[in-house]
Amino acid sequence: MEAKLNELKERLREVGDYYAISSLMGWDQATYMPPGGAEARGRQMARIGKLAHEKATDPAIGTLLDELQPYADSLPYDSDDAGLIRATRRAYERDVRVPPALVAEMSEHGARSYQAWISARPQNDFAALRPLLEKTLELSRKVADCFPGYTHIADPLIDMFDYGMKAQSVRALFAQLRQQLVPLVKAITAQPVADDSCLKRHFPKAGQLAFGEEIIKRYGYDFERGRQDLTHHPFATKFAIGDVRITTRVQEHDLGDCLFSTLHESGHAMYEQGVDPLYEGTTLDGGTSAGVHESQSRLWENIVGRSLAFWEHYYPRLQAMFPDTLNDVPLETFYRAINKVQRSLIRVDADEVTYNLHVMIRFDLELALLEGTLEVRDLAEAWHARYEQDLGIRAPDDRDGVLQDVHWYSGRIGGMFQGYTLGNILSAQFYEAALKAHPHIPTEIGRGEFGTLHGWLRENIYRHGSKYTAPELIERASGSPMSIEPYMRYLRGKYEQLYKV
Amino acid sequence: MEAKLNELKERLREVGDYYAISSLMGWDQATYMPPGGAEARGRQMARIGKLAHEKATDPAIGTLLDELQPYADSLPYDSDDAGLIRATRRAYERDVRVPPALVAEMSEHGARSYQAWISARPQNDFAALRPLLEKTLELSRKVADCFPGYTHIADPLIDMFDYGMKAQSVRALFAQLRQQLVPLVKAITAQPVADDSCLKRHFPKAGQLAFGEEIIKRYGYDFERGRQDLTHHPFATKFAIGDVRITTRVQEHDLGDCLFSTLHESGHAMYEQGVDPLYEGTTLDGGTSAGVHESQSRLWENIVGRSLAFWEHYYPRLQAMFPDTLNDVPLETFYRAINKVQRSLIRVDADEVTYNLHVMIRFDLELALLEGTLEVRDLAEAWHARYEQDLGIRAPDDRDGVLQDVHWYSGRIGGMFQGYTLGNILSAQFYEAALKAHPHIPTEIGRGEFGTLHGWLRENIYRHGSKYTAPELIERASGSPMSIEPYMRYLRGKYEQLYKV
Repeated sequence: MEAKLNELKERLREVGDYYAISSLMGWDQATYMPPGGAEARGRQMARIGKLAHEKATDPAIGTLLDELQPYADSLPYDSDDAGLIRATRRAYERDVRVPPALVAEMSEHGARSYQAWISARPQNDFAALRPLLEKTLELSRKVADCFPGYTHIADPLIDMFDYGMKAQSVRALFAQLRQQLVPLVKAITAQPVADDSCLKRHFPKAGQLAFGEEIIKRYGYDFERGRQDLTHHPFATKFAIGDVRITTRVQEHDLGDCLFSTLHESGHAMYEQGVDPLYEGTTLDGGTSAGVHESQSRLWENIVGRSLAFWEHYYPRLQAMFPDTLNDVPLETFYRAINKVQRSLIRVDADEVTYNLHVMIRFDLELALLEGTLEVRDLAEAWHARYEQDLGIRAPDDRDGVLQDVHWYSGRIGGMFQGYTLGNILSAQFYEAALKAHPHIPTEIGRGEFGTLHGWLRENIYRHGSKYTAPELIERASGSPMSIEPYMRYLRGKYEQLYKV
Repeated sequence: MEAKLNELKERLREVGDYYAISSLMGWDQATYMPPGGAEARGRQMARIGKLAHEKATDPAIGTLLDELQPYADSLPYDSDDAGLIRATRRAYERDVRVPPALVAEMSEHGARSYQAWISARPQNDFAALRPLLEKTLELSRKVADCFPGYTHIADPLIDMFDYGMKAQSVRALFAQLRQQLVPLVKAITAQPVADDSCLKRHFPKAGQLAFGEEIIKRYGYDFERGRQDLTHHPFATKFAIGDVRITTRVQEHDLGDCLFSTLHESGHAMYEQGVDPLYEGTTLDGGTSAGVHESQSRLWENIVGRSLAFWEHYYPRLQAMFPDTLNDVPLETFYRAINKVQRSLIRVDADEVTYNLHVMIRFDLELALLEGTLEVRDLAEAWHARYEQDLGIRAPDDRDGVLQDVHWYSGRIGGMFQGYTLGNILSAQFYEAALKAHPHIPTEIGRGEFGTLHGWLRENIYRHGSKYTAPELIERASGSPMSIEPYMRYLRGKYEQLYKV
């Protein structure tokens, strides 16, 4: 049994290494690669991607899993080996259902579609992308159809990113959230809008980077096992538990852009750095779902990084980092500026309160596309209509409308948006659970100390990697299934005070 | 035939992609990788290396080569396809002779040995490395013995780096060179030593990098298809013809270190950027030998970059880049400083005239090791003895003695040193041929223009990649076989004037 288990682990590590190598190529492409490297890089990434998929779906893995099943059944549910066999079987059975030719077609089409988006978006040319997007929809449906027996065609796609969720359960959760969010947004936006002009002063690049890195070092992001580089669209990436990197960007006249992206990505990265080293390279080595992952980034970015206690400690340091720039701005003004609530057009720039409305629009539209109740040709207008309906504003063109997010233009429709809102919901649920165990956490945050919070997250979330499914992990860590209540308590507590509503 | 040729090219491109991916991992390791990434990186590089070797020695390549031979024979010698089939056969027949287990052992032992050197060198602990070096010697002999029929055991090892050369021919060439170099060194070092204190002033990092990059951009290094990053031991590396990168390091109190490393590596990189794009990813995509490669780096570093004409143009710019730092230093003094000749201990810091004496010591010692006329246990003392004999100086310990260069501690003895001196010899031979075709090149250099020289090199050397063997390329480009005469003419012309000898 031990020999078989070791063979399985060795095979998984090979697959994991190929994915890690592919991630390194992607990181380099997004940070340092000169323009001339693009063509060969595409070819090299496709080659490694194909290899990874071949190895991940090698029938030998299926045989090993079958042979190991009696052993897994004999172990306690939460043993590492049982968890590994469970998680691997789930991934294997999912991966082998999609024919290699379809995987290759998705990947090739995704690359072409992404390139087209890169040039079409600045031109405001949705028409040029329409045929590509129609193909993307067709391919996404084909993938879903590899998993017959679904209730909604989006179910298999959602399941890949947020195991345990379905179109129906996400819809129900979002409807509940929407019902409570809309009145809150209405109440807040009836108040005078916060003045965030202090964030638009001149903040030199080096100081912005140093300040963000000082904070995340205190958060517990380990620079011996990671680093931060510059890119266009910030992300976190992993090559090993000992090498989890983040990226950011700097705008010298927008303090928030770099700072909150750094805090956000550090949350993703600390999750990955915190996985049990025994899981290195296997199916368990990585966060368990998109929603749980996003909960970690949003927790450190928003719940901690936009809290008053945090800034009581850090605001004087920020003022010192940029001498004479913020001396005339009281903490209260700064705190309101970084928590300004406003109906806006761009998801990634949206505040905590309105952010989820952006996500729900995308989620509903992609469900309608997959169902066939919305045609790609009507998508741009459907986007505008929903923004008018939900947020009361309309983008001047498609650039800030349907062309705004890269997701659909990366070769896949379905499954990629719900995680953002699940993450917001879960960030508050986990934080509430941490507070219950350690009520002094906010006091520590007010002193710039994060060890207790980081320790609780590592113990209850990070170290488990993918040993538990998201529903299991949520229940184990917070004591109850996913619920919007902690999140609404958090939002109400914070914003009713801020906006006196 | 065309289908078979395309299949061959596709197989070669696959191998080439794996080598490129491995190079990217190596580049990242030497530039940005955090310490925590080392272990997984080693594992990932070994995996890709194994894969590359497997694919490069796939019997299907041998079959294709056999099937394509009649086609190759029907083509003119200098057709691209004929060249590809020739070069691939040579590489394939060499690669298949070394058993995969030995390749893996070499690679694993090399990594362990390198790690041991990293820590033993600062400790001056040659004894700790002795058993590892004995193993390295044993493995190197085993590799040589995969090629029975050699005259000298080093022949197959030399052949891998400098095709066409053998222990005997290198020895003869070096003996000839030595005979002419030694009196020149003696005459120069009898003169007062040049004062290079002006290079040891304070030169801020950013200015050093900007100055070097300004020059190599003028040389013709294409930053759209490359970039420069910082590292400990500068090198050039290639991921595609469109992505050839260089690295450098900066010491703020040593102007020459960064500058000449940048010029040197740009020479290697321009060679690789200049390969015919039709060869992308195949056996022809890369410089033809270690010696020819080094000739390109030394040409741009020394023949151009340390010439008086060059500095007549660039010295005022250098002075402007570092205001008030060099105002009191006349061009003549600066020119003497960057061409200071001195018997010294460290190869990589040695001047143009004495440099080859360092190489010859290493070459002779490794031949003696391979022959068995020198034991590893006597190597450290043999090193000191040769330095006393050849250069009249003795290192205070082994750190600057036998532990100085990484080569032997990378898992291989034999083949890696002769290329440095072959490169010096060839740099002058190629430059003389370029001057013969375009006598106004020095005038252009004096105006900071390098287009004619770069064009000649691209046309006669770069674009051919590995289509011709080194001996063929040398003869085609310069009109005669390798000869030390141009090099000695160059050294005498320059240094007899500089030192009035």
